[in-house]
Amino acid sequence: MYKPTGWALHTDKYQVTMMYAHWKNGSHLHRKAFDLYFRKLPFGNGYAVFAGLERAVQYLENLQFTEEDIRYLAEQESFEPEFLDLLREFRFRGDIHGVREGTLVFPNEPLLRLEGTIMELQLVETALLNFIGYQTLVATKAARIYTIAEGDTLMEFGTRRAQESDAAVWGARAAYLAGFDATSNLRAGQMFGIPVQGTHSHAWVQDFDTEVEAFRAYARAFPDSSVLLVDTYDTLKSGVPHAIQVGRELKEKGYRLAGIRLDSGDLAYLSKEARRMLDEAGLTQTRIIASSDLDETTLLNLKSQGAKVDAWGVGTRLITAYDQPSLGAVYKLVAREQNGEWLPSIKISSNPEKVTTPGIKTVYRIIDQRTNKARGDLIIEEGHSIDEEQPLTLFHPIHTYRKKKVREFRAINLLHPIMRRGERVFDPPPLDEIRRYHLAQRSMFWEEYLRLMNPEEYPVDLSGELWNTKQELLQKIYRTIREENGS
Amino acid sequence: MYKPTGWALHTDKYQVTMMYAHWKNGSHLHRKAFDLYFRKLPFGNGYAVFAGLERAVQYLENLQFTEEDIRYLAEQESFEPEFLDLLREFRFRGDIHGVREGTLVFPNEPLLRLEGTIMELQLVETALLNFIGYQTLVATKAARIYTIAEGDTLMEFGTRRAQESDAAVWGARAAYLAGFDATSNLRAGQMFGIPVQGTHSHAWVQDFDTEVEAFRAYARAFPDSSVLLVDTYDTLKSGVPHAIQVGRELKEKGYRLAGIRLDSGDLAYLSKEARRMLDEAGLTQTRIIASSDLDETTLLNLKSQGAKVDAWGVGTRLITAYDQPSLGAVYKLVAREQNGEWLPSIKISSNPEKVTTPGIKTVYRIIDQRTNKARGDLIIEEGHSIDEEQPLTLFHPIHTYRKKKVREFRAINLLHPIMRRGERVFDPPPLDEIRRYHLAQRSMFWEEYLRLMNPEEYPVDLSGELWNTKQELLQKIYRTIREENGS
Repeated sequence: MYKPTGWALHTDKYQVTMMYAHWKNGSHLHRKAFDLYFRKLPFGNGYAVFAGLERAVQYLENLQFTEEDIRYLAEQESFEPEFLDLLREFRFRGDIHGVREGTLVFPNEPLLRLEGTIMELQLVETALLNFIGYQTLVATKAARIYTIAEGDTLMEFGTRRAQESDAAVWGARAAYLAGFDATSNLRAGQMFGIPVQGTHSHAWVQDFDTEVEAFRAYARAFPDSSVLLVDTYDTLKSGVPHAIQVGRELKEKGYRLAGIRLDSGDLAYLSKEARRMLDEAGLTQTRIIASSDLDETTLLNLKSQGAKVDAWGVGTRLITAYDQPSLGAVYKLVAREQNGEWLPSIKISSNPEKVTTPGIKTVYRIIDQRTNKARGDLIIEEGHSIDEEQPLTLFHPIHTYRKKKVREFRAINLLHPIMRRGERVFDPPPLDEIRRYHLAQRSMFWEEYLRLMNPEEYPVDLSGELWNTKQELLQKIYRTIREENGS
Repeated sequence: MYKPTGWALHTDKYQVTMMYAHWKNGSHLHRKAFDLYFRKLPFGNGYAVFAGLERAVQYLENLQFTEEDIRYLAEQESFEPEFLDLLREFRFRGDIHGVREGTLVFPNEPLLRLEGTIMELQLVETALLNFIGYQTLVATKAARIYTIAEGDTLMEFGTRRAQESDAAVWGARAAYLAGFDATSNLRAGQMFGIPVQGTHSHAWVQDFDTEVEAFRAYARAFPDSSVLLVDTYDTLKSGVPHAIQVGRELKEKGYRLAGIRLDSGDLAYLSKEARRMLDEAGLTQTRIIASSDLDETTLLNLKSQGAKVDAWGVGTRLITAYDQPSLGAVYKLVAREQNGEWLPSIKISSNPEKVTTPGIKTVYRIIDQRTNKARGDLIIEEGHSIDEEQPLTLFHPIHTYRKKKVREFRAINLLHPIMRRGERVFDPPPLDEIRRYHLAQRSMFWEEYLRLMNPEEYPVDLSGELWNTKQELLQKIYRTIREENGS
């Protein structure tokens, strides 16, 4: 009853009213180009991790209006029947270039560039922002936690606190591709092949007359993989001693207690004490898992206090991106075709940060040949290439006096063909490959860009031509406004 | 390919491993009772708005493992085949009591009480917290905004910034039931019958050679319902004058410009100026809609500055519950059946706020007969009733010296039968009725509880018997720990 029959209505009403108004105006098949990007990095981070592309492409491949959708729309507005017929036949037939999932990305560079009819590009805006905004946000949060974890196992435990069910699985995917090792969510495991892990809950322990009985019963079911939750009554006085007792019993039978989980209290102190107690009992292989409102800040603090934790279960603060639960991605018209030519288009704003960069553009990452580290990104007009034999001058698009010259570099185009006339033109890499690609990409950035607090601002520069086009369009618009106001 | 075939795996792995361990232990069919509740109000608010019940019930009615799910689980752990057969036949057959959606609810009172086998109650924990946590959170945020809006039209505009697609529709539903008037999300309109509204975007304007042409073309498509976005170039120098021009043209043809939308800049100043300009042009019926990172705090400030806004489009900060994106609801074992009797069960914690209240309980709302206002809620053991003829003493469950005596009251049981043996036993009210019920409930609370900042703490008290049971169980557990540690 509450199941939507298709994806076409996963959008804002104004997209459909604009499609209709274009159709009435005869302009619905005019070709346009839009960029999808974000303006500001989340969490004070120095980069974001692009994610959500595969979700977006599957949506576009399957996008159509069902008869139920058409009926619903017909009740909402007095759309003419011919327009509804057009919707019946609607398929996405646009061209898309996009960044590979797992790439480190920066403000104001196009992550997706779409070319197509205004009708199709308008309809898909809302869903693309919804899908890509969320996964990019969670992947970025996960990457921050990964930075601090220094090789410890990271498990995504957030499903119960996620913002509804889609967020749980797509958030688990985003966390995994940014370096997490596992999720607790079985659907995410089923859908994406992510390793799934878990322990047991307090209810398991409460449900037995004694804690040691509870541990023993759980260990009987999973003699080689039990992780026992030790804080139901008292971590050090009850939980850990009982876990040790069961750990010894397992050992006698040739098994091994896999781990204990700490879920409350002073995790630094408790983990050190628990480690000491386990080691003294000869359970040196038993791992300590910690959970309880963790994020990169708590991990950093716990590690600085010498916490003896082998694996971290991270829930609420990862899956909701607690300290900034929205990326604020945007989708802006950058060019429109007239007589077979692309005219750049700009949106101005009283806030200079919100002025768009007009034109059909691509993004090159400039890699220093000697260090193999990224020096900056350069946004240039599509079709223009960068001469790797000549020194390259990068300048800051707002503070233009900030310049630097780069020599001996490779320029890598970050925007790849994703769809052509609505057909997928790339093989989606398996999730593990995306994860490996992401981790390899990280190593191409100096740690000044990767650190959690006050990272260096990574340069994202505009080509001189783009910069000039932008200035000219701005001046033209302001001239028009002045003329209309008679000044 | 990414579509889950059922809902059974929308859960944490540990739920299934606990089911298995219970099965191995022979205890999987033992009956238990769980409470679902939250411990702390979000946003510093004085109440929460319960929502998500209908979603939860539909999930429970349809819950089963597909063959694909079973195959997936069999690959994950070496579950015995008899256990997998049990999953094949699994259906939810438990009993549920719950609060009506739209009810104002408070920390530590059971919102759902579930009785059933440990196997079924364990499986559903994660999904119930996920569904109810999110809708309750957004409904509460929406209620805060409603408090400030004082009858202005409120529109939910958050889909693009929602945490994936489910959040967009269920968040729209939650906002509507807590007093919002409309959403921009077409799927939410289709699924729940919520009124859907929208305007047009900046891209519409950019796509024409001049702003006035863009407005004219849009007005041709919707001559009686156009809302024109006026900030693409310059709100007061370009947008509003052009909207007025088109508004006059519409008027001459017997139509009416429905509204203009302000989406950036100083909304207080711009709305007052725009109102003045519209009125001077005779467009007194044209409404002003504002959007742009709004929430209850911005609304409060804008209204205190005399902003002339008729309708508010609220996006990111509502749909993500930006300032606290998780409710942190919990689901705790409160009783277990032994020999046909319910034994209360407790979970202790070094944090006293986290100690559970044991036993099978219900919640009464105590309404003052003279004022028809709520005096407090009382949690008592199920089956015990409240004598409305006798004065009732309420006392604070932590600060027990805080007491008050209530006379001439009605006691209303908030927990209604929802499912019996897995069958729904209540008629789901239409969403509009939930919304009306919610708004009527608000009027039963003094404004001291409803205000945004530093609201009074509404009393939620325990019956003397429950309080005693809790103390006894606590003492028993601490005695056991002391004895085991030989002190």
